[in-house]
Order: sequence, then structure tokens, then C-alpha cells
Amino acid sequence: MPVRPIEWLGDETGHLRLLDQTRLPAEIAFLDCRSVPQVIEAIQMLRVRGAPAIGVSAAYGMVLAAQQAGDVADAAFVDAMQIADRALFDSRPTAVNLGWALKEMAHVTRQSSSGSPAERLRRLFARAAEIEAEDRTMCAAMGRHGAPLLATAKNVLTHCNAGALATAGDGTALAVIFEAARKNPALHIYADETRPLWQGSRLTAWELVQNNVPCTVICDNMAASLMKSRKVDAVVVGADRITANGDVANKIGTYSVAVLARFHGVPFYVAAPTSTFDLELAGGDLIPIEQRAAHEISRPYGIPLAPEGAGVFNPAFDVTPAGLVTGIITEKGVISPVDVSSVRRMVG
Amino acid sequence: MPVRPIEWLGDETGHLRLLDQTRLPAEIAFLDCRSVPQVIEAIQMLRVRGAPAIGVSAAYGMVLAAQQAGDVADAAFVDAMQIADRALFDSRPTAVNLGWALKEMAHVTRQSSSGSPAERLRRLFARAAEIEAEDRTMCAAMGRHGAPLLATAKNVLTHCNAGALATAGDGTALAVIFEAARKNPALHIYADETRPLWQGSRLTAWELVQNNVPCTVICDNMAASLMKSRKVDAVVVGADRITANGDVANKIGTYSVAVLARFHGVPFYVAAPTSTFDLELAGGDLIPIEQRAAHEISRPYGIPLAPEGAGVFNPAFDVTPAGLVTGIITEKGVISPVDVSSVRRMVG
Repeated sequence: MPVRPIEWLGDETGHLRLLDQTRLPAEIAFLDCRSVPQVIEAIQMLRVRGAPAIGVSAAYGMVLAAQQAGDVADAAFVDAMQIADRALFDSRPTAVNLGWALKEMAHVTRQSSSGSPAERLRRLFARAAEIEAEDRTMCAAMGRHGAPLLATAKNVLTHCNAGALATAGDGTALAVIFEAARKNPALHIYADETRPLWQGSRLTAWELVQNNVPCTVICDNMAASLMKSRKVDAVVVGADRITANGDVANKIGTYSVAVLARFHGVPFYVAAPTSTFDLELAGGDLIPIEQRAAHEISRPYGIPLAPEGAGVFNPAFDVTPAGLVTGIITEKGVISPVDVSSVRRMVG
Repeated sequence: MPVRPIEWLGDETGHLRLLDQTRLPAEIAFLDCRSVPQVIEAIQMLRVRGAPAIGVSAAYGMVLAAQQAGDVADAAFVDAMQIADRALFDSRPTAVNLGWALKEMAHVTRQSSSGSPAERLRRLFARAAEIEAEDRTMCAAMGRHGAPLLATAKNVLTHCNAGALATAGDGTALAVIFEAARKNPALHIYADETRPLWQGSRLTAWELVQNNVPCTVICDNMAASLMKSRKVDAVVVGADRITANGDVANKIGTYSVAVLARFHGVPFYVAAPTSTFDLELAGGDLIPIEQRAAHEISRPYGIPLAPEGAGVFNPAFDVTPAGLVTGIITEKGVISPVDVSSVRRMVG
């Protein structure tokens, strides 16, 4: 990946640089975040997105919070960190990696609060950098575990963006695809454009082109037609949260693809690190689903595409039941079939 | 319908006025067509679209061809009309009503070619006006036959635009919905936005708002999620061509909705006049599917949404097998179940 979507510049006194993904593919523009509100704005506006990338960004956001807290004493430090934690946690409700990364950072905060300001900042920075490095390692491991599943595939469909732009590494679904493409150069990818925010055509197709993997962009409503003419050998997508029974919350439209795949006998894989599992939730019905602004659908880029007076429904995610998922590719191996006990064996 | 999408102004020496549907919903702009090339441009650019509306426009296009031919003698007249017929026929390949209307006009041309220039122009104009009037009558009849199917529905999903904008009357699918809404004021419609050209959000939602039918716009990839939460009681769509066995070609994404409806146990209806049937084709595999320009997907309204180097797949239509269609609502009644013999009984 020639362009780094998340980068911390300098030592623990440095700052976070994010690639502004809303400007792709037209423009490669970076955003320097030196405060928690800047990180929150970037997460809410989807300048940085993808469950693992949001987690890494939030971890670095806590380093910025510690910088801001400066030399205050223990109790005030813990308070300041809790306020930042809560604000970052509330920035997007569905992805579980955000909560996971913040819990890790809160743990370090508690352990280091009695240390010197320099010491606690150093320890928080070290953990954030570790979370980033772990994410990179997990992506590579998912690639290794998942690639054999696509060994004989000619055409693979993916939805939204679960690539390097969604993680600190090579991605989740795209790590699998990149690794498969290295061994199977005939592999061709169909990228659902993924309305309303076009992460598939803007981001996934851009990453595939950068990595010389042949790809074709389609509108979301064309996948069924391709499957009917046997042009899709497998589907691989990412995930924002997976519950104890294997239900998968991911970008809106994922469930639609899963139903179509089942109808046409096409295997449907989810690639996600174990940090995406939320074992505290029994099933997908319990996952909070973010509702986003109407104008994303009715006025994309300011163009009026729906009349005044019409309602708009804009959920950011949907839930695919475990029964429609052929396998979940994690950094520890592939869960298949997907159910409470197979999830517990791999993740619990 | 306060705005007429197709209107002939004046007598047989007059001209065709089309509502430019590419400008909706932002602007109500009309296009005055005084020559065949203008009508062809309007059809190709989807300024006028919808299978029945294309048929009516092409019929009036032949009146413009006769005006243009002026006083030439029989043989030259027939030649000129054949050239216009071929050019109009080639403007879009999938909708069968275009070919049907042109055949009707060719029949009048042959019958009237030995008459005076004034006489042949009058007869062609009379037939075109008749085709328009018949279309209006057929829409009303479809509304009457189809409305009882939605008598107890709370939420109905439609895809693309099969409304007044797609016909000379109240529409096909929307005629059914308008008639049902008059009897069932609680009826609420979900309109798939219908990428890549947004006919659902730009046109269908606009018509529904104009007619005070409550509606909500969704992205095409959200329909599955609504069906899963039992928010869709029935689907009604239009058609561009229906083969002898009941296979239905309609706007890309229709097949996707049909599969999702089957999976969720939701009835899936098609509304189309009998002029949409092409009994010469045994099945849907034989229907020519128009491929449209890549920029409709990659650069809508000039906004770059896909990178250079990615391919684009942009079929304008897909084919839904008869087996997924609960019923076809025609002006003569409802075909259900849908198969070769039920189609032959109603249409043959």
C-alpha cells in the first residue's frame, strides 16, 4: 500500500495523520489530528472508516487526550481520559473494535495514572502503537487463512471496503483477496459500489487498481444478475460486529448479498479479526444500528435526487444471520460452520 | 397528473412536447421535438423513458417523419418512413413496446401511402393519438385489476419508475399503487432509488409526493433488510419485455428484488399492458439487454466515484424468471400463476 491511511508522526508527543477517505478517488488529501474532537469529526464524517481502522484511530485519539491533559494530577487525569473515552465511544455506535480499543487504552490509563505525566503518555502511546501493529499482523494472518478458500475462484464479489483503508494493515476481506491474487493471478474482483457513500467504487476499486488486481465496479443492484449468469464464484466481506452466535453486522447491503449468494449457491465468507466479536451479545438483533443523515441518499454531493416530501431510510448497517455465512475468516483460522459453539471454540 | 410527460401540441402539423425527465426532481423542463433525430436523442438520453412512453413517443416520431417527408410520392414516402422507423427502432433495444408501436405505424404507412400527403399525415397522426389514448385506458384497467392485490398491504416496494412518467396514463405499477392508495389510505410506498440513473428517487418518489401517497426512498441495497423486518408486504414493478413463458425483462435490479421477495415470502407482482409481451421469444435468455455507458456508474453528474483503471459493468436491464413472479397484472386481468399456458390464455 503506497499510501498510509493511518499514521502517527513522531514520538508520543507527535500527532495522528489520517488519509481523508471522503476525497478519494479524486484526491489524496491528509488530515492532521492534534486533538480528540478532530479525531471524532474524522470518524463521524467517515474520513477514517472501517471497524479496525476506527479502533486504531480511537487508540491514538486517547494519546492525544493524554497530551492535552498535560501535567494534571492522577484523579484529574483519569477524569479527563474518561471524558475523551466517552466522546470517542459515542462517535459511531455499531463497530465493536472502537469499544475494544478504548477498553485496552482505559486499562493502560488505570495502570499508569500514578506515574509521571511523561511516563503515562509513553505507556499509552506504546499500547496504541501495539494495537496498530497487532492489527497489521492480524490482517496478514487473515490473508493466509482465507486465501486457500479462493484458490480456484475466477470472480469474487466484495461489498463496501474492507481493505487497507479500513485497517492498519492490508485489510480484512481485501487481505484475503490480495493474498489469493498473489497465488491466483487470474482472479478478478467485482466491487459493489455500496450506496449511499460509494466505499466500494471509491475505495475498494481504488485499492485494487493500486495493487494491480483486475476489478470491475457494479451498482449494488447488479450482483444478483451476475450470480445468475455464474459470474461470481465467492463473496468475501468484512464485519463491524459479530455476536456470540455468529450473526454479522456489516455495511448496509451485506445481508442482501448474503441472501442472493445463498439463493444462487455461492459461498459467502466474512473476514474479521477476533476483536470484531462481541461475545456479550447473544445475537444480531441486539446490535445497535446507526441511522445516518437523509441527505446522504437524497442529495449526494449536493445533487437533489429525491423530492421534498419523500421520507428517507438510511441505516448504516444490516445484520446477516450466521446461517447465511459459509465461514468467518479470523487471524486464528476459519470458523465454519458458523454457530455458538464454533465461535466459542475460536474466540471465547 | 398535473404535469404531462408526453403531449402532442396542435393538429397533425403540430409537434411533440416531452418533459425532460433527466432534470427531475430539481426542475420541470420541457423539450419540443420537431424532428425524428430529436425524438431519438430524447429516447437514448432517457429524457423520455419507460416502455409504454417510449412506444407512444416513437409513434409520434413517425408523424414527424411524415411531416418531414412532405409532398414526396408514394415510393419515396415509404422509403423515408422506413428509414425513420429503423432509426427509432434502434434507439433502445430492450423495450418491446417501441417495436410494437412502430409496427402499428408501419401498417398505417402502407395503407395510406397512395393517399394525398395531407391524408397520409392525418391517418398517421390519428393512429399515434389512438396509441396514446389506448395506453391511458390500459393504465386505468391495470389499476383496477391490480389494486385488490394490495387491499390489505401496509407497505409496498417498487423499483425504478413505472408511473405516469413511464406511460401516457397513470403508469403500470404506479397505476396499481395509485388505485390501491385511493381505497387504502394507510398505504405507504418504499421506492428503491434505482442506480445508476435514480429513476426511483428522482421520478417515482416525485410522482408519489405529487399524488400525496406517503413514500420513503431507500438505496437499492436496503430492500432486503426491510423485508427481513417484515416492512414489505408486496412488491410491484413494471416491465420492458415479457416473453411467451412469462420471463420479465425490467430495469436492472428487478431480478435482485424478485429473489429477495421469494426468500422472504413476499409476493412479487409485475404490471404491464399486453403490448409488453413478445410471444415470438420463448424465454428471457433471448431478450437483448442494452449495455449503457460506464460513466453513468463511475462519474454520475460528473463526480468521479471510481478510479481510472477499474472496469465498469452497466446493463440497463435484467431478466426475472416467471417462477419468481407471483402474478402479472395486465389491462385484461391478472395472470397467475405465470407460465406458457396462462400467458397464452391472456395474451395469445
